[in-house]
Amino acid sequence: MIENERRIRDSLSNQGLLTTLDARMELLDSGHVTLSMPITPAASQQHGFVHAGATFALGDSASGYAAMTMMGPEAEVMTVEMKINLIAPADGIRLWAYGEVVKPGRRLIITRCTVEVERADGTRRDVALLQGTMIPV
Amino acid sequence: MIENERRIRDSLSNQGLLTTLDARMELLDSGHVTLSMPITPAASQQHGFVHAGATFALGDSASGYAAMTMMGPEAEVMTVEMKINLIAPADGIRLWAYGEVVKPGRRLIITRCTVEVERADGTRRDVALLQGTMIPV
Amino acid sequence: MIENERRIRDSLSNQGLLTTLDARMELLDSGHVTLSMPITPAASQQHGFVHAGATFALGDSASGYAAMTMMGPEAEVMTVEMKINLIAPADGIRLWAYGEVVKPGRRLIITRCTVEVERADGTRRDVALLQGTMIPV
Amino acid sequence: MIENERRIRDSLSNQGLLTTLDARMELLDSGHVTLSMPITPAASQQHGFVHAGATFALGDSASGYAAMTMMGPEAEVMTVEMKINLIAPADGIRLWAYGEVVKPGRRLIITRCTVEVERADGTRRDVALLQGTMIPV
Repeated sequence: MIENERRIRDSLSNQGLLTTLDARMELLDSGHVTLSMPITPAASQQHGFVHAGATFALGDSASGYAAMTMMGPEAEVMTVEMKINLIAPADGIRLWAYGEVVKPGRRLIITRCTVEVERADGTRRDVALLQGTMIPV
Repeated sequence: MIENERRIRDSLSNQGLLTTLDARMELLDSGHVTLSMPITPAASQQHGFVHAGATFALGDSASGYAAMTMMGPEAEVMTVEMKINLIAPADGIRLWAYGEVVKPGRRLIITRCTVEVERADGTRRDVALLQGTMIPV
Repeated sequence: MIENERRIRDSLSNQGLLTTLDARMELLDSGHVTLSMPITPAASQQHGFVHAGATFALGDSASGYAAMTMMGPEAEVMTVEMKINLIAPADGIRLWAYGEVVKPGRRLIITRCTVEVERADGTRRDVALLQGTMIPV
Repeated sequence: MIENERRIRDSLSNQGLLTTLDARMELLDSGHVTLSMPITPAASQQHGFVHAGATFALGDSASGYAAMTMMGPEAEVMTVEMKINLIAPADGIRLWAYGEVVKPGRRLIITRCTVEVERADGTRRDVALLQGTMIPV
Protein backbone atom coordinates (compact mmCIF):
# COMPACT_ATOMS: atom_id res chain seq x y z
CA MET A 1 0.00 0.00 0.00
CA ILE A 2 1.48 3.30 -1.11
CA GLU A 3 0.52 5.99 1.42
CA ASN A 4 0.37 8.78 -1.09
CA GLU A 5 -1.04 6.83 -4.05
CA ARG A 6 -3.98 9.20 -4.45
CA ARG A 7 -1.63 12.19 -4.39
CA ILE A 8 0.62 10.66 -7.04
CA ARG A 9 -2.29 9.80 -9.33
CA ASP A 10 -3.72 13.31 -8.93
CA SER A 11 -0.31 14.78 -9.68
CA LEU A 12 -0.18 12.91 -12.97
CA SER A 13 -3.50 14.30 -14.12
CA ASN A 14 -2.53 17.83 -13.00
CA GLN A 15 0.75 17.90 -14.91
CA GLY A 16 0.06 19.93 -18.02
CA LEU A 17 2.92 18.45 -20.01
CA LEU A 18 2.02 14.87 -19.13
CA THR A 19 -1.59 15.57 -20.08
CA THR A 20 -0.36 17.10 -23.33
CA LEU A 21 1.59 13.89 -23.95
CA ASP A 22 -1.38 11.73 -22.82
CA ALA A 23 0.76 9.83 -20.30
CA ARG A 24 -0.87 7.02 -18.34
CA MET A 25 0.02 5.34 -15.03
CA GLU A 26 0.58 1.63 -15.71
CA LEU A 27 2.04 0.49 -12.41
CA LEU A 28 2.57 2.12 -9.05
CA ASP A 29 4.38 0.15 -6.38
CA SER A 30 6.87 0.90 -3.65
CA GLY A 31 9.94 2.29 -5.40
CA HIS A 32 8.62 1.43 -8.87
CA VAL A 33 6.42 3.38 -11.27
CA THR A 34 5.66 2.58 -14.90
CA LEU A 35 4.23 5.22 -17.21
CA SER A 36 3.28 4.90 -20.88
CA MET A 37 2.27 7.32 -23.61
CA PRO A 38 1.17 6.99 -27.24
CA ILE A 39 3.60 7.99 -29.96
CA THR A 40 1.87 10.76 -31.85
CA PRO A 41 3.03 13.58 -34.11
CA ALA A 42 2.69 15.94 -31.13
CA ALA A 43 5.58 14.20 -29.35
CA SER A 44 7.80 13.60 -32.34
CA GLN A 45 10.79 15.10 -34.09
CA GLN A 46 11.11 15.64 -37.83
CA HIS A 47 11.59 11.96 -38.74
CA GLY A 48 8.51 10.77 -36.93
CA PHE A 49 10.47 9.28 -34.03
CA VAL A 50 9.73 10.39 -30.50
CA HIS A 51 11.55 13.64 -29.65
CA ALA A 52 14.28 13.22 -27.04
CA GLY A 53 12.40 15.78 -24.95
CA ALA A 54 9.29 13.60 -24.78
CA THR A 55 11.33 10.49 -23.98
CA PHE A 56 13.05 12.47 -21.24
CA ALA A 57 9.74 13.84 -19.90
CA LEU A 58 8.25 10.35 -19.55
CA GLY A 59 11.39 8.85 -18.04
CA ASP A 60 11.95 11.74 -15.64
CA SER A 61 8.31 11.60 -14.51
CA ALA A 62 8.38 7.83 -13.91
CA SER A 63 11.56 8.39 -11.87
CA GLY A 64 10.00 11.19 -9.83
CA TYR A 65 6.84 9.22 -9.07
CA ALA A 66 8.92 6.19 -8.10
CA ALA A 67 10.71 8.47 -5.62
CA MET A 68 7.38 9.79 -4.29
CA THR A 69 6.17 6.25 -3.47
CA MET A 70 8.85 6.05 -0.80
CA MET A 71 7.91 9.27 0.94
CA GLY A 72 5.26 10.50 3.36
CA PRO A 73 1.77 11.49 2.23
CA GLU A 74 2.59 15.22 2.06
CA ALA A 75 5.89 15.00 0.28
CA GLU A 76 6.67 15.99 -3.25
CA VAL A 77 9.91 15.72 -5.16
CA MET A 78 11.83 17.78 -7.67
CA THR A 79 14.49 16.65 -10.10
CA VAL A 80 17.93 17.88 -9.07
CA GLU A 81 19.65 16.45 -12.12
CA MET A 82 19.00 13.76 -14.67
CA LYS A 83 21.16 12.16 -17.32
CA ILE A 84 19.74 10.38 -20.31
CA ASN A 85 21.50 8.11 -22.79
CA LEU A 86 19.49 7.70 -25.97
CA ILE A 87 20.39 4.26 -27.29
CA ALA A 88 18.02 3.70 -30.24
CA PRO A 89 15.45 5.72 -32.19
CA ALA A 90 11.95 5.43 -30.72
CA ASP A 91 9.90 4.33 -33.71
CA GLY A 92 6.68 2.59 -32.75
CA ILE A 93 3.23 3.12 -31.32
CA ARG A 94 3.78 3.48 -27.57
CA LEU A 95 6.53 4.46 -25.14
CA TRP A 96 6.98 2.75 -21.76
CA ALA A 97 9.07 4.18 -18.91
CA TYR A 98 10.08 1.97 -15.97
CA GLY A 99 11.24 4.19 -13.12
CA GLU A 100 12.81 2.79 -9.97
CA VAL A 101 14.49 4.02 -6.82
CA VAL A 102 18.00 2.65 -6.53
CA LYS A 103 18.94 4.52 -3.37
CA PRO A 104 16.33 6.08 -1.12
CA GLY A 105 17.56 8.75 1.25
CA ARG A 106 16.26 11.39 3.57
CA ARG A 107 17.97 14.24 1.73
CA LEU A 108 18.33 12.80 -1.78
CA ILE A 109 16.84 9.90 -3.72
CA ILE A 110 18.71 8.25 -6.60
CA THR A 111 16.66 6.81 -9.45
CA ARG A 112 17.12 4.90 -12.67
CA CYS A 113 14.70 4.44 -15.53
CA THR A 114 14.60 2.38 -18.70
CA VAL A 115 12.42 3.61 -21.57
CA GLU A 116 11.17 1.10 -24.13
CA VAL A 117 9.34 1.54 -27.40
CA GLU A 118 6.50 -0.82 -28.33
CA ARG A 119 6.05 -1.49 -32.05
CA ALA A 120 2.81 -2.29 -33.86
CA ASP A 121 3.71 -6.00 -33.88
CA GLY A 122 4.01 -6.02 -30.09
CA THR A 123 7.80 -6.26 -29.99
CA ARG A 124 9.74 -3.86 -27.80
CA ARG A 125 13.22 -2.50 -27.47
CA ASP A 126 15.10 -0.21 -25.13
CA VAL A 127 15.42 3.35 -26.37
CA ALA A 128 16.80 5.27 -23.39
CA LEU A 129 18.39 4.91 -19.97
CA LEU A 130 18.14 7.61 -17.31
CA GLN A 131 19.98 8.05 -14.02
CA GLY A 132 19.28 10.97 -11.73
CA THR A 133 18.73 12.58 -8.35
CA MET A 134 15.46 13.72 -6.75
CA ILE A 135 15.05 15.98 -3.72
CA PRO A 136 12.05 16.13 -1.37
CA VAL A 137 10.36 19.54 -1.30
CA MET B 1 26.24 32.57 -43.17
CA ILE B 2 25.06 29.17 -41.96
CA GLU B 3 25.03 26.75 -44.91
CA ASN B 4 22.09 24.75 -43.68
CA GLU B 5 20.08 27.59 -42.12
CA ARG B 6 17.00 26.80 -44.21
CA ARG B 7 17.23 23.14 -43.19
CA ILE B 8 17.50 24.02 -39.52
CA ARG B 9 14.54 26.41 -39.63
CA ASP B 10 12.44 23.82 -41.48
CA SER B 11 13.42 21.20 -38.93
CA LEU B 12 12.10 23.40 -36.13
CA SER B 13 8.71 23.77 -37.75
CA ASN B 14 8.56 20.02 -38.50
CA GLN B 15 9.28 18.92 -34.95
CA GLY B 16 5.91 17.95 -33.51
CA LEU B 17 6.98 18.39 -29.91
CA LEU B 18 8.53 21.82 -30.52
CA THR B 19 5.38 22.89 -32.36
CA THR B 20 3.34 21.58 -29.44
CA LEU B 21 5.49 23.71 -27.14
CA ASP B 22 5.32 26.68 -29.55
CA ALA B 23 9.12 27.03 -29.65
CA ARG B 24 10.61 29.87 -31.65
CA MET B 25 14.06 30.40 -33.18
CA GLU B 26 15.53 33.60 -31.67
CA LEU B 27 19.11 33.40 -32.92
CA LEU B 28 20.99 31.14 -35.29
CA ASP B 29 24.70 31.65 -35.67
CA SER B 30 27.73 29.46 -36.13
CA GLY B 31 27.87 27.23 -33.05
CA HIS B 32 25.12 29.17 -31.28
CA VAL B 33 21.34 28.78 -31.32
CA THR B 34 18.81 30.45 -29.05
CA LEU B 35 15.27 29.13 -28.78
CA SER B 36 12.38 30.44 -26.69
CA MET B 37 8.91 29.21 -25.79
CA PRO B 38 5.98 30.60 -23.83
CA ILE B 39 5.24 29.14 -20.40
CA THR B 40 1.73 27.76 -20.66
CA PRO B 41 -0.24 25.14 -18.74
CA ALA B 42 0.52 22.67 -21.55
CA ALA B 43 4.22 22.68 -20.63
CA SER B 44 3.85 22.80 -16.86
CA GLN B 45 3.88 20.49 -13.88
CA GLN B 46 1.38 20.52 -11.05
CA HIS B 47 2.64 23.74 -9.42
CA GLY B 48 2.46 25.81 -12.58
CA PHE B 49 6.22 25.80 -13.13
CA VAL B 50 7.63 24.50 -16.38
CA HIS B 51 7.94 20.71 -16.34
CA ALA B 52 11.53 19.46 -16.37
CA GLY B 53 10.67 17.61 -19.57
CA ALA B 54 9.78 20.84 -21.37
CA THR B 55 12.89 22.60 -20.06
CA PHE B 56 14.94 19.64 -21.25
CA ALA B 57 13.22 19.60 -24.67
CA LEU B 58 14.00 23.26 -25.30
CA GLY B 59 17.58 23.00 -24.06
CA ASP B 60 18.29 19.77 -25.92
CA SER B 61 16.86 21.25 -29.14
CA ALA B 62 18.90 24.46 -28.87
CA SER B 63 21.98 22.26 -28.34
CA GLY B 64 21.19 20.07 -31.35
CA TYR B 65 20.58 23.02 -33.65
CA ALA B 66 23.80 24.66 -32.46
CA ALA B 67 25.57 21.45 -33.48
CA MET B 68 23.84 21.47 -36.88
CA THR B 69 25.14 24.97 -37.64
CA MET B 70 28.66 23.54 -37.78
CA MET B 71 27.86 20.78 -40.23
CA GLY B 72 27.31 20.39 -43.97
CA PRO B 73 23.99 21.19 -45.64
CA GLU B 74 22.77 17.58 -45.61
CA ALA B 75 23.74 16.66 -42.09
CA GLU B 76 21.47 16.08 -39.17
CA VAL B 77 22.32 15.27 -35.59
CA MET B 78 20.96 13.07 -32.85
CA THR B 79 21.45 13.38 -29.12
CA VAL B 80 23.73 10.65 -27.80
CA GLU B 81 23.38 11.72 -24.19
CA MET B 82 22.41 14.83 -22.30
CA LYS B 83 22.66 15.80 -18.66
CA ILE B 84 20.56 18.50 -17.11
CA ASN B 85 20.96 20.21 -13.75
CA LEU B 86 17.79 21.99 -12.70
CA ILE B 87 18.92 24.89 -10.55
CA ALA B 88 15.74 26.91 -9.89
CA PRO B 89 12.00 26.54 -10.52
CA ALA B 90 10.95 28.03 -13.87
CA ASP B 91 8.17 30.38 -12.88
CA GLY B 92 7.56 33.13 -15.41
CA ILE B 93 6.18 33.87 -18.83
CA ARG B 94 8.84 32.66 -21.24
CA LEU B 95 11.73 30.20 -21.35
CA TRP B 96 14.98 30.94 -23.22
CA ALA B 97 17.56 28.29 -24.15
CA TYR B 98 21.07 29.32 -25.22
CA GLY B 99 22.73 26.35 -26.91
CA GLU B 100 26.39 26.38 -27.93
CA VAL B 101 28.99 24.02 -29.31
CA VAL B 102 31.93 23.70 -26.96
CA LYS B 103 33.82 21.09 -28.96
CA PRO B 104 33.03 20.43 -32.58
CA GLY B 105 34.22 17.12 -33.96
CA ARG B 106 33.83 14.93 -36.98
CA ARG B 107 32.49 11.99 -34.98
CA LEU B 108 31.00 13.72 -31.94
CA ILE B 109 30.00 17.26 -31.01
CA ILE B 110 29.94 18.43 -27.40
CA THR B 111 27.39 21.08 -26.43
CA ARG B 112 26.35 23.15 -23.46
CA CYS B 113 23.16 25.08 -22.91
CA THR B 114 21.86 27.51 -20.30
CA VAL B 115 18.10 27.84 -19.88
CA GLU B 116 16.69 31.06 -18.41
CA VAL B 117 13.21 32.01 -17.33
CA GLU B 118 11.85 35.47 -18.13
CA ARG B 119 9.39 36.90 -15.62
CA ALA B 120 6.53 39.29 -16.30
CA ASP B 121 8.65 42.20 -15.03
CA GLY B 122 11.35 41.44 -17.58
CA THR B 123 13.86 40.03 -15.10
CA ARG B 124 15.48 36.71 -15.84
CA ARG B 125 17.25 33.97 -14.00
CA ASP B 126 18.99 30.72 -14.87
CA VAL B 127 16.86 27.64 -14.36
CA ALA B 128 18.87 24.84 -15.95
CA LEU B 129 22.28 23.87 -17.31
CA LEU B 130 22.75 21.13 -19.89
CA GLN B 131 25.87 19.38 -21.12
CA GLY B 132 25.74 16.67 -23.77
CA THR B 133 26.95 14.89 -26.86
CA MET B 134 25.52 14.99 -30.39
CA ILE B 135 26.33 12.62 -33.26
CA PRO B 136 25.96 13.34 -36.99
CA VAL B 137 23.52 11.01 -38.74
CA MET C 1 36.04 -16.98 -24.93
CA ILE C 2 36.94 -13.32 -25.13
CA GLU C 3 39.01 -12.75 -28.27
CA ASN C 4 41.06 -9.94 -26.82
CA GLU C 5 41.36 -11.23 -23.25
CA ARG C 6 45.16 -11.11 -23.32
CA ARG C 7 45.03 -7.54 -24.63
CA ILE C 8 42.64 -6.46 -21.89
CA ARG C 9 44.71 -8.04 -19.14
CA ASP C 10 47.89 -6.46 -20.52
CA SER C 11 46.12 -3.11 -20.68
CA LEU C 12 45.27 -3.33 -17.00
CA SER C 13 48.88 -3.89 -16.01
CA ASN C 14 50.06 -1.08 -18.32
CA GLN C 15 47.71 1.53 -16.93
CA GLY C 16 49.80 3.65 -14.60
CA LEU C 17 46.86 4.92 -12.58
CA LEU C 18 45.37 1.45 -12.11
CA THR C 19 48.77 0.15 -11.06
CA THR C 20 49.06 3.06 -8.66
CA LEU C 21 45.68 2.07 -7.23
CA ASP C 22 46.65 -1.64 -7.24
CA ALA C 23 43.53 -2.61 -9.22
CA ARG C 24 42.93 -6.30 -9.95
CA MET C 25 40.87 -8.09 -12.59
CA GLU C 26 38.30 -10.26 -10.78
CA LEU C 27 36.09 -11.34 -13.68
CA LEU C 28 36.26 -10.93 -17.44
CA ASP C 29 33.34 -12.19 -19.48
CA SER C 30 31.48 -11.07 -22.57
CA GLY C 31 30.06 -7.64 -21.72
CA HIS C 32 31.00 -7.93 -18.04
CA VAL C 33 34.17 -6.99 -16.18
CA THR C 34 34.72 -6.84 -12.45
CA LEU C 35 37.68 -4.98 -10.98
CA SER C 36 38.67 -4.55 -7.34
CA MET C 37 41.20 -2.48 -5.46
CA PRO C 38 42.30 -2.18 -1.84
CA ILE C 39 41.25 0.91 0.11
CA THR C 40 44.49 2.54 1.17
CA PRO C 41 45.49 6.05 2.22
CA ALA C 42 46.82 6.61 -1.32
CA ALA C 43 43.27 6.44 -2.74
CA SER C 44 41.49 8.30 0.03
CA GLN C 45 40.20 11.74 0.82
CA GLN C 46 40.68 13.55 4.11
CA HIS C 47 38.22 11.43 6.14
CA GLY C 48 39.78 8.13 5.16
CA PHE C 49 37.00 7.24 2.72
CA VAL C 50 37.84 6.47 -0.87
CA HIS C 51 38.20 9.65 -2.95
CA ALA C 52 35.49 10.09 -5.56
CA GLY C 53 38.26 10.18 -8.15
CA ALA C 54 39.45 6.69 -7.24
CA THR C 55 35.89 5.34 -7.18
CA PHE C 56 35.37 6.89 -10.60
CA ALA C 57 38.67 5.51 -11.94
CA LEU C 58 37.77 1.95 -10.94
CA GLY C 59 34.19 2.19 -12.23
CA ASP C 60 35.20 3.86 -15.47
CA SER C 61 37.89 1.24 -16.08
CA ALA C 62 35.54 -1.69 -15.40
CA SER C 63 33.10 -0.08 -17.86
CA GLY C 64 35.77 0.39 -20.53
CA TYR C 65 37.05 -3.16 -20.24
CA ALA C 66 33.49 -4.50 -20.38
CA ALA C 67 33.12 -2.58 -23.66
CA MET C 68 36.42 -4.02 -24.95
CA THR C 69 35.21 -7.59 -24.42
CA MET C 70 32.64 -7.05 -27.16
CA MET C 71 35.10 -5.81 -29.75
CA GLY C 72 37.67 -7.29 -32.12
CA PRO C 73 41.17 -8.25 -30.98
CA GLU C 74 42.75 -4.99 -32.14
CA ALA C 75 40.18 -2.58 -30.80
CA GLU C 76 40.53 -0.21 -27.90
CA VAL C 77 38.00 2.13 -26.38
CA MET C 78 37.96 5.60 -24.93
CA THR C 79 35.46 7.14 -22.57
CA VAL C 80 33.30 9.74 -24.33
CA GLU C 81 31.43 10.72 -21.21
CA MET C 82 30.66 9.20 -17.84
CA LYS C 83 28.27 10.18 -15.08
CA ILE C 84 28.69 9.02 -11.51
CA ASN C 85 26.22 9.20 -8.65
CA LEU C 86 27.94 8.77 -5.31
CA ILE C 87 25.35 7.19 -3.03
CA ALA C 88 27.24 6.34 0.17
CA PRO C 89 30.70 6.96 1.63
CA ALA C 90 33.16 4.20 0.73
CA ASP C 91 34.48 3.15 4.13
CA GLY C 92 35.93 -0.34 4.16
CA ILE C 93 38.83 -2.46 3.03
CA ARG C 94 38.19 -3.09 -0.66
CA LEU C 95 36.29 -1.55 -3.56
CA TRP C 96 34.53 -3.67 -6.22
CA ALA C 97 33.39 -2.32 -9.58
CA TYR C 98 30.94 -4.33 -11.73
CA GLY C 99 31.00 -2.94 -15.26
CA GLU C 100 28.58 -4.09 -17.92
CA VAL C 101 27.62 -3.24 -21.48
CA VAL C 102 23.97 -2.27 -21.70
CA LYS C 103 23.97 -1.38 -25.39
CA PRO C 104 26.72 -2.52 -27.70
CA GLY C 105 27.06 -0.61 -30.95
CA ARG C 106 29.41 -0.22 -33.84
CA ARG C 107 29.89 3.51 -33.25
CA LEU C 108 29.15 3.84 -29.53
CA ILE C 109 28.86 1.47 -26.58
CA ILE C 110 26.72 2.30 -23.57
CA THR C 111 27.82 0.98 -20.18
CA ARG C 112 26.70 0.92 -16.59
CA CYS C 113 28.67 0.09 -13.47
CA THR C 114 27.89 -0.45 -9.81
CA VAL C 115 30.68 0.11 -7.28
CA GLU C 116 30.47 -1.62 -3.91
CA VAL C 117 32.56 -1.31 -0.80
CA GLU C 118 33.55 -4.40 1.17
CA ARG C 119 33.93 -3.94 4.92
CA ALA C 120 36.27 -5.84 7.25
CA ASP C 121 33.36 -8.03 8.40
CA GLY C 122 32.69 -9.13 4.83
CA THR C 123 29.49 -7.09 4.38
CA ARG C 124 29.12 -4.92 1.31
CA ARG C 125 27.11 -1.97 0.17
CA ASP C 126 26.69 0.05 -2.99
CA VAL C 127 28.66 3.29 -3.04
CA ALA C 128 28.36 4.53 -6.62
CA LEU C 129 26.50 4.07 -9.88
CA LEU C 130 27.99 5.02 -13.25
CA GLN C 131 26.42 5.35 -16.68
CA GLY C 132 28.43 6.34 -19.72
CA THR C 133 29.45 6.08 -23.34
CA MET C 134 32.55 4.45 -24.86
CA ILE C 135 33.87 4.88 -28.39
CA PRO C 136 36.11 2.43 -30.30
CA VAL C 137 39.49 3.90 -31.30
CA MET D 1 39.15 36.74 1.82
CA ILE D 2 37.99 33.14 1.93
CA GLU D 3 36.93 32.32 5.51
CA ASN D 4 37.97 28.70 5.35
CA GLU D 5 41.07 29.09 3.18
CA ARG D 6 43.29 27.36 5.72
CA ARG D 7 40.84 24.47 5.96
CA ILE D 8 40.73 24.06 2.20
CA ARG D 9 44.51 24.11 1.84
CA ASP D 10 44.88 21.58 4.66
CA SER D 11 42.26 19.41 3.04
CA LEU D 12 44.28 19.30 -0.16
CA SER D 13 47.39 18.10 1.61
CA ASN D 14 45.40 15.51 3.59
CA GLN D 15 43.76 13.95 0.55
CA GLY D 16 45.70 10.77 -0.11
CA LEU D 17 44.71 10.54 -3.74
CA LEU D 18 45.56 14.17 -4.47
CA THR D 19 48.92 13.70 -2.75
CA THR D 20 49.45 10.56 -4.83
CA LEU D 21 48.73 12.63 -7.94
CA ASP D 22 50.89 15.52 -6.64
CA ALA D 23 48.07 18.06 -7.11
CA ARG D 24 48.78 21.71 -6.33
CA MET D 25 46.53 24.64 -5.46
CA GLU D 26 47.06 27.34 -8.11
CA LEU D 27 44.24 29.74 -7.27
CA LEU D 28 41.68 29.97 -4.51
CA ASP D 29 39.05 32.66 -4.74
CA SER D 30 35.37 33.00 -3.92
CA GLY D 31 33.61 30.41 -6.08
CA HIS D 32 36.75 29.63 -8.07
CA VAL D 33 39.54 27.13 -7.48
CA THR D 34 42.29 26.11 -9.88
CA LEU D 35 44.31 22.95 -9.29
CA SER D 36 47.15 21.52 -11.36
CA MET D 37 49.10 18.27 -11.41
CA PRO D 38 52.04 16.90 -13.37
CA ILE D 39 51.38 14.26 -16.03
CA THR D 40 53.38 11.26 -14.92
CA PRO D 41 53.20 7.53 -15.64
CA ALA D 42 51.44 7.09 -12.28
CA ALA D 43 48.38 8.98 -13.56
CA SER D 44 48.33 7.60 -17.08
CA GLN D 45 46.62 4.94 -19.11
CA GLN D 46 48.31 2.55 -21.50
CA HIS D 47 49.02 5.12 -24.24
CA GLY D 48 50.75 7.58 -21.93
CA PHE D 49 47.81 9.97 -21.84
CA VAL D 50 46.27 10.94 -18.53
CA HIS D 51 43.78 8.31 -17.34
CA ALA D 52 40.17 9.53 -17.31
CA GLY D 53 40.12 8.72 -13.59
CA ALA D 54 42.94 11.18 -12.87
CA THR D 55 41.35 13.87 -15.04
CA PHE D 56 38.11 13.29 -13.17
CA ALA D 57 39.83 13.37 -9.78
CA LEU D 58 41.46 16.73 -10.47
CA GLY D 59 38.29 18.26 -11.95
CA ASP D 60 36.04 16.92 -9.22
CA SER D 61 38.42 18.23 -6.54
CA ALA D 62 38.65 21.70 -8.08
CA SER D 63 34.83 21.73 -8.19
CA GLY D 64 34.51 20.65 -4.57
CA TYR D 65 36.99 23.22 -3.31
CA ALA D 66 35.27 25.94 -5.34
CA ALA D 67 32.06 24.95 -3.52
CA MET D 68 33.84 25.06 -0.14
CA THR D 69 34.95 28.66 -0.72
CA MET D 70 31.33 29.75 -0.52
CA MET D 71 30.60 28.06 2.78
CA GLY D 72 31.24 28.68 6.46
CA PRO D 73 34.56 27.85 8.14
CA GLU D 74 33.38 24.47 9.44
CA ALA D 75 31.66 23.19 6.34
CA GLU D 76 32.80 20.45 4.06
CA VAL D 77 31.25 19.18 0.87
CA MET D 78 30.72 15.85 -0.80
CA THR D 79 30.11 15.14 -4.46
CA VAL D 80 26.51 14.04 -5.06
CA GLU D 81 27.01 13.42 -8.75
CA MET D 82 29.41 14.51 -11.44
CA LYS D 83 29.37 14.18 -15.20
CA ILE D 84 32.49 14.40 -17.30
CA ASN D 85 32.80 14.79 -21.07
CA LEU D 86 36.26 13.87 -22.29
CA ILE D 87 36.83 15.95 -25.39
CA ALA D 88 40.48 15.34 -26.31
CA PRO D 89 43.32 13.07 -25.17
CA ALA D 90 45.41 14.64 -22.43
CA ASP D 91 48.92 14.41 -23.83
CA GLY D 92 51.31 16.91 -22.28
CA ILE D 93 53.25 17.76 -19.18
CA ARG D 94 50.67 19.26 -16.81
CA LEU D 95 46.93 19.19 -16.21
CA TRP D 96 44.97 22.28 -15.09
CA ALA D 97 41.45 22.16 -13.62
CA TYR D 98 39.38 25.35 -13.33
CA GLY D 99 36.49 24.71 -10.97
CA GLU D 100 33.70 27.22 -10.43
CA VAL D 101 30.39 27.49 -8.64
CA VAL D 102 27.59 28.22 -11.08
CA LYS D 103 24.76 28.07 -8.56
CA PRO D 104 25.41 28.29 -4.84
CA GLY D 105 22.65 27.02 -2.58
CA ARG D 106 22.01 26.17 1.02
CA ARG D 107 21.12 22.56 0.26
CA LEU D 108 22.98 21.95 -2.99
CA ILE D 109 25.78 23.66 -4.93
CA ILE D 110 26.11 23.31 -8.69
CA THR D 111 29.59 23.42 -10.20
CA ARG D 112 31.33 23.34 -13.54
CA CYS D 113 34.95 22.70 -14.35
CA THR D 114 37.14 22.85 -17.44
CA VAL D 115 40.29 20.74 -17.52
CA GLU D 116 43.14 21.78 -19.80
CA VAL D 117 46.36 20.07 -20.74
CA GLU D 118 49.60 22.06 -20.99
CA ARG D 119 52.11 20.84 -23.54
CA ALA D 120 55.91 21.12 -23.36
CA ASP D 121 55.79 24.08 -25.76
CA GLY D 122 53.46 25.98 -23.42
CA THR D 123 50.34 25.60 -25.56
CA ARG D 124 47.16 24.37 -23.94
CA ARG D 125 43.91 22.80 -24.96
CA ASP D 126 40.71 21.71 -23.29
CA VAL D 127 40.53 18.02 -22.49
CA ALA D 128 37.45 17.67 -20.30
CA LEU D 129 34.32 19.44 -19.08
CA LEU D 130 32.60 18.55 -15.82
CA GLN D 131 29.21 19.53 -14.44
CA GLY D 132 28.01 18.32 -11.05
CA THR D 133 26.34 18.75 -7.70
CA MET D 134 27.93 19.16 -4.25
CA ILE D 135 26.22 18.82 -0.88
CA PRO D 136 27.37 20.38 2.41
CA VAL D 137 28.13 17.80 5.12
